[in-house]
Amino acid sequence: MENITIKRLADQLDLSVSTVSKALRDSHEISAETKTRVLALAADLHYVPNPYASSLRQKKSHTIAVVVPEVADSFLSLVINGIELVAGQKGYHVLMYLTHESFLKEKAILQDFQSGRVDGVLISMSSETADIEHIESLHSKGMPIVFFDRVFEQSRMATVTTNDFESSYQATQHLIEQRCEYIAFLALTRNLQIFNSRLEGYSQALADANLPVRPEFVLNCSNDNQQNYDLIKHRFQSKQRPDAVLASAEKLAITTYQVCAELKLAIPQEIKVVSFSTLETADLLNPSLSTVTQPAFEMGKAAASVLFKALEKKHFHAQHESVRLPSMLIARNSSKT
Amino acid sequence: MENITIKRLADQLDLSVSTVSKALRDSHEISAETKTRVLALAADLHYVPNPYASSLRQKKSHTIAVVVPEVADSFLSLVINGIELVAGQKGYHVLMYLTHESFLKEKAILQDFQSGRVDGVLISMSSETADIEHIESLHSKGMPIVFFDRVFEQSRMATVTTNDFESSYQATQHLIEQRCEYIAFLALTRNLQIFNSRLEGYSQALADANLPVRPEFVLNCSNDNQQNYDLIKHRFQSKQRPDAVLASAEKLAITTYQVCAELKLAIPQEIKVVSFSTLETADLLNPSLSTVTQPAFEMGKAAASVLFKALEKKHFHAQHESVRLPSMLIARNSSKT
Repeated sequence: MENITIKRLADQLDLSVSTVSKALRDSHEISAETKTRVLALAADLHYVPNPYASSLRQKKSHTIAVVVPEVADSFLSLVINGIELVAGQKGYHVLMYLTHESFLKEKAILQDFQSGRVDGVLISMSSETADIEHIESLHSKGMPIVFFDRVFEQSRMATVTTNDFESSYQATQHLIEQRCEYIAFLALTRNLQIFNSRLEGYSQALADANLPVRPEFVLNCSNDNQQNYDLIKHRFQSKQRPDAVLASAEKLAITTYQVCAELKLAIPQEIKVVSFSTLETADLLNPSLSTVTQPAFEMGKAAASVLFKALEKKHFHAQHESVRLPSMLIARNSSKT
Repeated sequence: MENITIKRLADQLDLSVSTVSKALRDSHEISAETKTRVLALAADLHYVPNPYASSLRQKKSHTIAVVVPEVADSFLSLVINGIELVAGQKGYHVLMYLTHESFLKEKAILQDFQSGRVDGVLISMSSETADIEHIESLHSKGMPIVFFDRVFEQSRMATVTTNDFESSYQATQHLIEQRCEYIAFLALTRNLQIFNSRLEGYSQALADANLPVRPEFVLNCSNDNQQNYDLIKHRFQSKQRPDAVLASAEKLAITTYQVCAELKLAIPQEIKVVSFSTLETADLLNPSLSTVTQPAFEMGKAAASVLFKALEKKHFHAQHESVRLPSMLIARNSSKT
C-alpha cells in the first residue's frame, strides 16, 4: 500500500516533519501561509492520517471488539447487526472474534487486548468458560467490558440479558397447560448462568404445578450435534418417552425435529416442542415452531450503547449497568393440543 | 486502559527510551546486562508491545477487512466462519463491516482503508453498487482485494464464486422436468453479475426446452421485504399464475412461502419452489425446500486463502486468481410432482 506520509509532505515542502504535523493540527505556532501550503499539498496528494499513528497519539483505537461463540446462528447474527449499527453511528470500527465455544481461544483473544488494540469489549462467553479470571484481569486494567446474553452475573461488570428465568418458567407453564407431564429440558452447559436460569425456570414451573423434576428428563447436550442427536434419540426411545421438549438453544430444537422425523414421532400429537430461538423460519417449519423469542437486535444495540457510555464519560462506571430485556413466548403449532 | 509503555520502563530504569526499545528488540548495540534488566522489568510489569506502534514500524496492521451486505443471512454467516478460520490460523485480526446494501456506505468504508488500517480486503458487493471505481481506486494504490460471491467479473481483481449460470440452468431444468411451464424467476438486482448469471441460466434452460422467456415472469425484487411480498402476491393472483418459482436469494423463498400461506396455495401441488439457499432448516420447512446449496464455508476459506497468498508473497498478483466452487441442487418436497 503506497502511503502519503507526513514525512513525504515535509520533504516535498522542504519543511520539518514537526512543522507539517503542527500545521495539519492547526497549531498556533505555525503561520497562516505555511498552513495553507501544507493543506494544499495534503489535499493534492490525498493525504489520509494514519489511524495507528493517531491511535498512538490519542491512546485511542476507535475500535471495539465483539467476542462471540459463533456467527452461524440467527440470534448472534441479529445481535451483531445491532452492535454494528451503534458502532457505525459513533464512527467506531468493529473487530469480530469467534471463540467457537473454546475457553482457551477466548482467553488468548482477551490476552491480546491488553496491548491497546481496542478501546472496549463486548463479550458473550463460550460454553466452556467456567471462570472469568481472564476477563476480570483485563477489566481491572481499565478496559470497559460489557457482557451480553451469556453473562457472568457475579462479576462487577455491565450485563445485558433477557429474562431467562421468567421466560423459561412461562414456556414450561404453557406446556403444562397443554396437559404435558413428562417435559424434557434440553440443557446446553452448566457453566453459564443463562442456561442455569432457564433450567431453574423450568424446574420452578414444574414444582409450582406439583410435578416432579426428573433428573433423567434433563438432557445435558453439548456443542457436538451428533452427540446431541444420539442423546435425544435415546431418550425418545426409552420406556417413558417425554410428551414435550423445552429446548434451551435453537440448534437443539432443530436436532429434535430431525430425531422426530427419523423416529416418525408426530409433533405436536406425540411430542410438543418449544424452543428458545430467533429463527426467521420458525413460522414455516413443519410444524411451525413455538418459540421463546429474544429481542436479539435490541440486545446488540443495548450492549453497544452501554459500552459507549463507558467510553464517552470519564467517570462512568460500566459495572453499575445491568439491562434486562424481555423475551416473548410465541405459541405455534409445535405445542398445540 | 493503563498501559505499560516503553517510556515508563525507561523512566523506571533510568535509561533512554531508545535504549529500552533496542534492548527489547535484542539489538547488538545494547549490553547483555542492560538487556537483562530491561527484560526483567518488562516481565514484572507485564509490558505488552503496542500493536499500533508495531504497525507503524512494520507498516503492517495484521488486520484484514471483511465487507459484506449483512450477517443475518445463513450464507454470509457461514462464509464469515470460513474467513475467520483462515485468518485466525495466520494470526490476523478480522474487521467486520456491514454495508446494509448501501453503495454510499460501501464507498465510505473503502475510503477509510486508504489510511492503512488493514492489509487486505475481502468484499461481497452491495446490491446498489453499479460501478466499482471506489474499489479499483483502493486496489490501484496497492491494496490486495478479493471479491467473493457478489463479484465484479470485469475487474482485474481476484474472485471467488460459484457456478451460478450452471446451477440456475440445472434448477430450471429440474422444474421443467416436473412439467412446469410457467416458471417465475425472482431476481434481486441487475447491478450484480451473480444475479445476472442466475437469470441467464434460467433463460437459457427455458430456451433449450423451447419454452418462451416471459418478461412478466421475471420479478424484480428488492431489499424491501414488504415490497417483495406485494410483488409476488400480485403475480400469484394474476390471471396466468406461475406453476413454479426459482428464487435467486434465500429471503425471496421465505417470502414466497409466506405469500402461499396467505393465499392458501399448496406447495408443491399448485406452485413448485426451488431457491438458492444455505438454510440449515431447509429440510424441516413445510414442505421441505428444494435448494441450490452453495459451499458457503468453503467459499470463505477460499477467499481468505487467496488474500493471504497475496499478502505473503511479494510478487504474487492476486488479480490472476479466479476460484469457482460448485453449488449443488438438492431436490426436496417443494419441487416434487
